[in-house]
Amino acid sequence: MNSKTVVQHHALGEFVTELFVSQKMPLAHARDVSDALLWANLRGVDTHGVSRIQMYCEMIKKGHINPLGVPEVIQSSLSVQVVEAHKSAGPIAVKRGTLLASEIAKQTGIGLVMIRNTTHTAAMGYYTEMLAQKGLCAIAISASRPMMAYHGAAGAGVSTAPLSLAVPARNQKAVFLDMSSGIISMGKLIQHKHQNHPLQEDWALDEHGAPTTDPQKATIPRPLGGPKGSGLALMIELMTSLPVMNPLLSCSITGANGGTRHNQNAWVIAVDISKFCDMEDYLTELDETVAAIKGLPKMDPAVDILMPGERGYLERSKREQNGIGITPTVIKQLNQLAQDFGVKTPW
Amino acid sequence: MNSKTVVQHHALGEFVTELFVSQKMPLAHARDVSDALLWANLRGVDTHGVSRIQMYCEMIKKGHINPLGVPEVIQSSLSVQVVEAHKSAGPIAVKRGTLLASEIAKQTGIGLVMIRNTTHTAAMGYYTEMLAQKGLCAIAISASRPMMAYHGAAGAGVSTAPLSLAVPARNQKAVFLDMSSGIISMGKLIQHKHQNHPLQEDWALDEHGAPTTDPQKATIPRPLGGPKGSGLALMIELMTSLPVMNPLLSCSITGANGGTRHNQNAWVIAVDISKFCDMEDYLTELDETVAAIKGLPKMDPAVDILMPGERGYLERSKREQNGIGITPTVIKQLNQLAQDFGVKTPW
Repeated sequence: MNSKTVVQHHALGEFVTELFVSQKMPLAHARDVSDALLWANLRGVDTHGVSRIQMYCEMIKKGHINPLGVPEVIQSSLSVQVVEAHKSAGPIAVKRGTLLASEIAKQTGIGLVMIRNTTHTAAMGYYTEMLAQKGLCAIAISASRPMMAYHGAAGAGVSTAPLSLAVPARNQKAVFLDMSSGIISMGKLIQHKHQNHPLQEDWALDEHGAPTTDPQKATIPRPLGGPKGSGLALMIELMTSLPVMNPLLSCSITGANGGTRHNQNAWVIAVDISKFCDMEDYLTELDETVAAIKGLPKMDPAVDILMPGERGYLERSKREQNGIGITPTVIKQLNQLAQDFGVKTPW
Repeated sequence: MNSKTVVQHHALGEFVTELFVSQKMPLAHARDVSDALLWANLRGVDTHGVSRIQMYCEMIKKGHINPLGVPEVIQSSLSVQVVEAHKSAGPIAVKRGTLLASEIAKQTGIGLVMIRNTTHTAAMGYYTEMLAQKGLCAIAISASRPMMAYHGAAGAGVSTAPLSLAVPARNQKAVFLDMSSGIISMGKLIQHKHQNHPLQEDWALDEHGAPTTDPQKATIPRPLGGPKGSGLALMIELMTSLPVMNPLLSCSITGANGGTRHNQNAWVIAVDISKFCDMEDYLTELDETVAAIKGLPKMDPAVDILMPGERGYLERSKREQNGIGITPTVIKQLNQLAQDFGVKTPW
């Protein structure tokens, strides 16, 4: 009854693309969205994959995402550009910003693209990995509405703002970290709720802002390391949202200016290290560092020491071969959307 | 017996400056070191203040710090510069990098300075706050030798690599975060040892790599959020140390190339947001965001909701007035150094 439906990733990608095209999104943009979501599913990060499609379609319906929106550079200096997303979906705007950051970095050494007025950005590691595969180092951050507790507050004050860092490695792989600033992800909170597994202390608050271990009552994840995680999330809002005049937290908390904004802002930074070092020497040093860390004694002899991003590469090679398993809940959502928009499912 | 010696910060700063001048450091550089250490003491971060002087002097003696070292720009592109610190003390090299990053940002929008071959950088928040006070956003990271557990490993594999983010605010204050990637700082670990307070589970390992709550046995702090904290620390090494060909972890772990390097590398990034927004509008948005977060219901009515960096500003105004309390242990170290180098103590 709870068994997953296994779908080959190419077929799933085509289905997702058609679903967005059927909602008036241009084909190239629909592919951008599909690629970003499938990337997460292939790497085992199912919380950022096709499970988000229902939300994306809902946002198109409500006008929060404009399927015809085209990201536009509205301001620039030599090494920084500001992209107005015009409510285009996150993967469209952030991919555009990522490619721009890469072009700038190749000219001046470092490129920053500030992206404003986009929506759910999908996994930020998707963009930093893309830069690392071009031989660049990358930093990406993104801000959204309040859903995580701020240290010392009995309620949601900040988003689970993610931070992603990446560096190039051999064979078109990258070493990259993609972490949220929460102690537990929204996805994991929901998983515990479905399975009725009690939460650890300090993981979450209930809707009234009181700490709880009851998975049925927990609604607000708490920050990683208290003031560290919520401080990081707040700094990400202050850096990505305020200079582009699109604050997300203040109006959501106070209800001013129309209240909650289903909106996101992001920064993508690319650094062209090849201007400053021989890339072959760099890669040799990387191999040596990875080997040294992996050569440390293991905490549990049965559990390998992994690099940031490595688990996802392992999962990807399995899922590229065997297909992606989709839960009955998500299949039901996708069946409904396929019916609504007259698209044929590949299952 | 355990009472602290209270010293006014100006007198303490003069003493520290003279102590380094007496070891052949040029006056301006000695002041840079003194300013960085005093900044931490004034803000209540005593682990990064004058308690480090004994270590700095030891490093001068052993040749790890060159008191005559002058940081030098050895490579540059339009928006990135690489500074060879020539073993000058961290506060000298990183301050130089900070000022350079600021100059570049004012020209091209963003400036990155990669600093190689320096030593203990002191608190990274010192440099990001400096940039924020000039109206810039800032990101700074630094890497050093392995002293923190890597997730899954039974031993030290990475440093407690810090990350600092800062944005400008009114009245020459900044909102800024300065966090390590560890769940507990080395300083706090030592404090628990002195007071014989048991540690929380998951805080530390003993010298054999086994988890322990015994403060007398704990030597290796564990990472914040497991793979998140150790992943962050590793990414910081890969970004700051490898492109400048000065890896710190691999040789320390394997003993290759002379083993442990008492050395650090850092990145300082400055972004001139005033090119893209009206700073008055930005500051108004900042005030609104701060007010919204501070207006959230409190977890504990007696405990204020604080911004990143705010506790340090409160402490600073107290200590500027009342002086800085120094522990008997540190006073003893400083007395010995004063005697060794013929400098008069202000107490």
